[in-house]
Amino acid sequence: MDLIEKMNWRYATKRMNGTKVSQEKLENILEAVRLAPTSFGLQPFKVIVVEDAKLRERIYNEACKQPQIMEGSHVLVFAARKNVDQQQVDEYVNLIAKTRGLQVESLNDFKAMFGGVVSRSEDKNFVWTARQAYIAFGVGIVAAAMENVDATPMEGFSPEAMDKILGLDEQNLSSVNVLVLGYRDAENDRLSKVKKVRKTKESLFDFR
Amino acid sequence: MDLIEKMNWRYATKRMNGTKVSQEKLENILEAVRLAPTSFGLQPFKVIVVEDAKLRERIYNEACKQPQIMEGSHVLVFAARKNVDQQQVDEYVNLIAKTRGLQVESLNDFKAMFGGVVSRSEDKNFVWTARQAYIAFGVGIVAAAMENVDATPMEGFSPEAMDKILGLDEQNLSSVNVLVLGYRDAENDRLSKVKKVRKTKESLFDFR
Repeated sequence: MDLIEKMNWRYATKRMNGTKVSQEKLENILEAVRLAPTSFGLQPFKVIVVEDAKLRERIYNEACKQPQIMEGSHVLVFAARKNVDQQQVDEYVNLIAKTRGLQVESLNDFKAMFGGVVSRSEDKNFVWTARQAYIAFGVGIVAAAMENVDATPMEGFSPEAMDKILGLDEQNLSSVNVLVLGYRDAENDRLSKVKKVRKTKESLFDFR
Repeated sequence: MDLIEKMNWRYATKRMNGTKVSQEKLENILEAVRLAPTSFGLQPFKVIVVEDAKLRERIYNEACKQPQIMEGSHVLVFAARKNVDQQQVDEYVNLIAKTRGLQVESLNDFKAMFGGVVSRSEDKNFVWTARQAYIAFGVGIVAAAMENVDATPMEGFSPEAMDKILGLDEQNLSSVNVLVLGYRDAENDRLSKVKKVRKTKESLFDFR
């Protein structure tokens, strides 16, 4: 299928050439991220989409000294909720009711399922909300490839500095990963021509 | 793009009809999972692909009482490494050298980058390896949709019971999520006809 071809085409681009990703392609990639499934459907994260050059410069200088931050087109910062409280659950249940034309009360059993989540420690919930952000991150990586847009998934940055720059603390969010969108500078990126390294099917999968 | 259409088509299928997913489609979905990017490219997880009816029955009875386990075609259990040791790093660096026709010694600087990972606590590494498994999980969800195969992403199971049934402890692995592949039983699955609920673009993204 086409997807396999695109997954083989993509790689963690180390140098980009400054070309802008079109609004249409950006919208498609973000729409795929928006549609990504999450546990209970809660989507306990935000994605900060940074295009502004000055802001990207600050991120480069203070949080993530990798050239793609400046050479890329858009920097997507996935930030997971540090807490999950009843207000978030209520808002979500209201959204379900509104979307599906239901009485909120008819969702009381569903709402009760969040009891264990809301009462969990913040640390435990952040492990969980971060995982949900990673699902959307994986979907975003595929979506970029399907649009023939290069992307660099990154964990190598300072979340503390990133959170400060983007004012995420105040929103009870913390950055967990970054996806830079742009176009490869094939000439200057030595990784653009090397073979992809992956475990064999036999070592990654266990068929029972 | 086609991907958006497929992402809208898919949903967390609650009832499946027992139809088998073809070998070709299964291989394509697994190939996409194999190609998913991970931090450093380490792929610190395994995916157990369960088709055997007796084993699925045990999973259903002891680890995950959801009908898709029996009604689905294949149950994919994503299991993350509980530890990251030098042996795993060495094996990976050897794989890079072999794939790219390099001398292992030429990768010494790259190998040294794993110092911080290998010396981290097991708890911290499991948080990290699980996140890598979630990227592959997200890719698998998209890949299934692209093949018009239904899928149920699940976190609602007992990892302890699952690990015991599949003998994952002995391999230093622990199950983090499950993706059941199969085909929807639209008649008996009330969720097959309801509207998808997702946050609006405005509330999920923050444009800067």
